[in-house]
Amino acid sequence: VRGARRPDTLFWADPSRIAGHRLSLDPDESRHLLRVFRAEPGTPFEATDGTGTRYRCRLAEDHHGEARAEIVERVEGAGELSSAIHLLVGLPDSRAAEVIAEHAVPLGVASILFAACRRSGRDELGAAKLERLERIAIAGVKQSLRSRLPVLGTTANLQTALEAARHGPRFVADPSGAAALELSVETPQTAVTVAVGPPGGFDEGEVAALRAAGFRPICLGPSRLTTETASIELLSMVRNVIITNNLRGI
Amino acid sequence: VRGARRPDTLFWADPSRIAGHRLSLDPDESRHLLRVFRAEPGTPFEATDGTGTRYRCRLAEDHHGEARAEIVERVEGAGELSSAIHLLVGLPDSRAAEVIAEHAVPLGVASILFAACRRSGRDELGAAKLERLERIAIAGVKQSLRSRLPVLGTTANLQTALEAARHGPRFVADPSGAAALELSVETPQTAVTVAVGPPGGFDEGEVAALRAAGFRPICLGPSRLTTETASIELLSMVRNVIITNNLRGI
Repeated sequence: VRGARRPDTLFWADPSRIAGHRLSLDPDESRHLLRVFRAEPGTPFEATDGTGTRYRCRLAEDHHGEARAEIVERVEGAGELSSAIHLLVGLPDSRAAEVIAEHAVPLGVASILFAACRRSGRDELGAAKLERLERIAIAGVKQSLRSRLPVLGTTANLQTALEAARHGPRFVADPSGAAALELSVETPQTAVTVAVGPPGGFDEGEVAALRAAGFRPICLGPSRLTTETASIELLSMVRNVIITNNLRGI
Repeated sequence: VRGARRPDTLFWADPSRIAGHRLSLDPDESRHLLRVFRAEPGTPFEATDGTGTRYRCRLAEDHHGEARAEIVERVEGAGELSSAIHLLVGLPDSRAAEVIAEHAVPLGVASILFAACRRSGRDELGAAKLERLERIAIAGVKQSLRSRLPVLGTTANLQTALEAARHGPRFVADPSGAAALELSVETPQTAVTVAVGPPGGFDEGEVAALRAAGFRPICLGPSRLTTETASIELLSMVRNVIITNNLRGI
């Protein structure tokens, strides 16, 4: 009886597992659908491969524990904002980086670039830590019903990160800033980039490099915020502008 | 030599420890100032008692390990927003409640009321958990350089919580909402209340009670947010309106 109910879970399928109107789930996700939800052939479910599409599926067969399904419908951009928000953040410690990923992914971030800055006091992220962040990002996409997996990256310094942020409105959280966020994202598909310093903040040379790269300083208010709280706040602010414009039909 | 430097820490003093132009720090804070920073008589430092004042102090003496100081100046409202934001949140699990406190306090929240809702699946917070949240709140006030300790509370149901929220603009995060945040906080000291459902959301009766109590539904966007991420986002949005108005001189 339970198998007839559509699971309230968005399943994850690696892009390599989608072929025409057929899709299969990887081992963990198959187990979840077949064993936990006890899905039977015919059970409807939804999946994403993180490339911007949500797949409405119907289970075709349990093939030696692998869930194989027919794609009934593709919904492009499901759960996604109309504009991309890129987050450039001065690398904090590992736990803070995870907190950022945990909240930024549901909030719709398109990419997170962790730049080892002067005051980061650490090297760029290693492969193992990036993999751990990617697992957090996949869990975030599933939980928040997004359809696009944010791109996670890391650079050895700020300058390299700035080379990736040359287009669209750019803002940097400025503890001493006097400017409010004045952003109108009038064109859907506009990419917005927000930058937040590492614990201790960007140093003078980095602040100058950000200004030279077109980042406008934004005041985040009268209290002192950690790198992770500032990242979430700045994302929330830009997200709200995008949502508001969408609701107004812009 | 180190003693001459002003510690980059905001110290905490219980309100009972302030008397006229004298102030003493409690044992942990005294140890931090006297042992870690090796402060000597004459060292300047700053403290708050969480009632809205930041005290500029000068260490007078190390009295058997207790830091006793002279208050040189009082700064009212340091690190505080010009308007109060009250957060009413459907009680989630303990870890999620802590995450909310960790981010909401630096973001300037005036109070957090955890209401045990129908879908909370748990009773209101006990004294031990409230105490733990209060320790997180004090750490947040110190770290973010605020001067007012948010009020933390809990109620056995939503209705009781709503009785405390009868004034000022009121908003509720609505997953199915079509309305953007249209808020102008034109009068400083206006209190704004934002409400976020527990995991699983407010139930139908609770949604009706919120509307009856004057809460306007706000769309938080196309993705599904956890109670904690939604709380932080909604706070960030309202905070930004307040900051923007302040910067415009409203």
